Amino acid sequence: MSAQFSYQLSSTSGGARLGQITTPRGVIDTPAFMPVGTAATVKALYCDQVKQTGAQVILGNTYHLMLRPGAERVAKLGGLHKFMGWDGPILTDSGGFQVMSLSKLRKISEEGAAFQSHIDGSKHMLSPERSIEIQCLLGSDIQMQLDECTPFPATHDEAERSMEMSLRWAARSKTSFGANSAPAQALFGIVQGGVYPDLRARSAEGLVGQDFHGYSIGGLAVGEGHEMMLKTLEQTTPLLPTDKPRYLMGVGTPLDLIEAVARGVDMFDCVMPTRSGRHGQVFTWDGKFNLKNARFAEDPRPLDAASSCPAARDYSRAYLHHLVRCGELLGAMLLSWANIAFYQDLMAAMRAAIAEDRFEEFAAQTKQRLAGGPAV
Amino acid sequence: MSAQFSYQLSSTSGGARLGQITTPRGVIDTPAFMPVGTAATVKALYCDQVKQTGAQVILGNTYHLMLRPGAERVAKLGGLHKFMGWDGPILTDSGGFQVMSLSKLRKISEEGAAFQSHIDGSKHMLSPERSIEIQCLLGSDIQMQLDECTPFPATHDEAERSMEMSLRWAARSKTSFGANSAPAQALFGIVQGGVYPDLRARSAEGLVGQDFHGYSIGGLAVGEGHEMMLKTLEQTTPLLPTDKPRYLMGVGTPLDLIEAVARGVDMFDCVMPTRSGRHGQVFTWDGKFNLKNARFAEDPRPLDAASSCPAARDYSRAYLHHLVRCGELLGAMLLSWANIAFYQDLMAAMRAAIAEDRFEEFAAQTKQRLAGGPAV
Repeated sequence: MSAQFSYQLSSTSGGARLGQITTPRGVIDTPAFMPVGTAATVKALYCDQVKQTGAQVILGNTYHLMLRPGAERVAKLGGLHKFMGWDGPILTDSGGFQVMSLSKLRKISEEGAAFQSHIDGSKHMLSPERSIEIQCLLGSDIQMQLDECTPFPATHDEAERSMEMSLRWAARSKTSFGANSAPAQALFGIVQGGVYPDLRARSAEGLVGQDFHGYSIGGLAVGEGHEMMLKTLEQTTPLLPTDKPRYLMGVGTPLDLIEAVARGVDMFDCVMPTRSGRHGQVFTWDGKFNLKNARFAEDPRPLDAASSCPAARDYSRAYLHHLVRCGELLGAMLLSWANIAFYQDLMAAMRAAIAEDRFEEFAAQTKQRLAGGPAV
Repeated sequence: MSAQFSYQLSSTSGGARLGQITTPRGVIDTPAFMPVGTAATVKALYCDQVKQTGAQVILGNTYHLMLRPGAERVAKLGGLHKFMGWDGPILTDSGGFQVMSLSKLRKISEEGAAFQSHIDGSKHMLSPERSIEIQCLLGSDIQMQLDECTPFPATHDEAERSMEMSLRWAARSKTSFGANSAPAQALFGIVQGGVYPDLRARSAEGLVGQDFHGYSIGGLAVGEGHEMMLKTLEQTTPLLPTDKPRYLMGVGTPLDLIEAVARGVDMFDCVMPTRSGRHGQVFTWDGKFNLKNARFAEDPRPLDAASSCPAARDYSRAYLHHLVRCGELLGAMLLSWANIAFYQDLMAAMRAAIAEDRFEEFAAQTKQRLAGGPAV
């Protein structure tokens, strides 16, 4: 636990950045995709499988973990890494996003987010200070300030008020982080401002002035659409320092990742690969397809014979189709695994393309291939 | 695929038998417990995990597989072993039991069991001949005759009529097996007769006269109770040849297994370890307990620090409790794995005790320990 948190930009290819984040628990090659370990488990995967896919960092959800099993309990049991058996870096979100999306009764005020648990109705207050306290109790390596994820659509006035409160919460988070965190932990500020360039600019400026370890881009992929997301990204990343990592929260599809990397994003997380896997959908170099489809019933080929992931390489589509049709847990297990492996392979391929300064060509070819659909 | 099916009795300890079944796909040390791979998957486990627990043979359900994905389809895809990725021996049941327990509309006649699928209502006829044909299409190494699992309670007359039809079905199954099977495959007859010693005797005599590769004991653990099951076993196993394996179908708890081995049974199958695992229950040397229980919420100990199974050894009870409480798939995965491992450890310990002719002592100590409950 001696190394400090740091980010090193190695090279660029167009707007895409190749870099490395160093944490006491290991390095993270960027651009990186973080599998989501919502409630202290990447759903349906063993930790060693997650690691074997190449994932170097996972995400934990503060909202879920504060409710079950509770942050104090995790701390008592030795922290989140020990609790779930993952010894690599862990990034935690602030809990704010899930308060908005999952809690039925919630009230946002300057103090923070008062809410009732979606599980048992118990009442909680998630303030910027409490969010940092929880993340420190969990022992995560990279933490997020509490922010308000501005809904879409929002008027300029609404987005402005929301963004400014998030900025004030950033300052309170940073103060709390200074008082609670271990030396090697890192705190990211979160850029908000909806789809309004002037607000994104003021948000970025305000955060950069507070000097965070990294900068997240929040409030996207909430309904604004792919094009608007990319436009907002294009306007936002140039406002951020080149010597700090940029994290686009909650995104996205393989196409989203390619486009966002092209616009200078370094880190991603999304439940899509695991959630889709539980519903019979797989991501491959030939696009996304649904294994429930009858055309796979007698297809003896694996998902991807060239994959290094056993789930994609060693099981026939016919068998996966059967498992999915029967609702067998092994189907969810194998498809979640294959999807996480594909996402990691995609990131590795993007990193290789940036290193060789051929990202634009790679992106064009890959987008074309992803749109093609599986060979039949 | 050169070796023939054979059984070798190595030694005995009281009524308990140590032996070995040889099949072209590997040996099975007996007494053996067969994990149930209902629909071509041992629920929530990877095949290599099943193998690592020490399991040398698994069971496939003809009823489930004939409906999904269909026996002809499995054959087209290379057989059940290849389809599911298990290269060890597979035993298949006849499908009769599930017709009774799962199908809503069914009609048993001399011809066989006409039934409607519990999945889509499609109509099927499972005759002794069709059952063998299906098992041969699946390519299982050890097959079962179609029988009628006599319900409990049944009058002597009912049990007699049912048993006699099962005997006639045995002969038809054997004829069909002779016409359809590969040289190294084996067919077991199934002793029925309810809880009536005279009927069990006539059933055993009738089957032994037909000279099967092994003999199953069916129609137990269907409501007659533990004591009546043991009493019936005691009356039945002496009627069977010592040079053939005996298989008690669908049983049971760890205590059931110990008592049945003491009475000369060699093979078992049961969904209990996997089904219980999916519901938060674990089997250990200290008995069965439910991880949902709040007393495990902060228990840092593993299920069994001495286990060779990672699921039992490397995860805290607190973490397992959390996973079970949250309904996480990893909870079902880990507990199913730990339970299958415990069942295999129990069988291995029984085999060691028979080899050293101390089975009675082992059984007494283990039963006492199993009744004790987990240390707190």
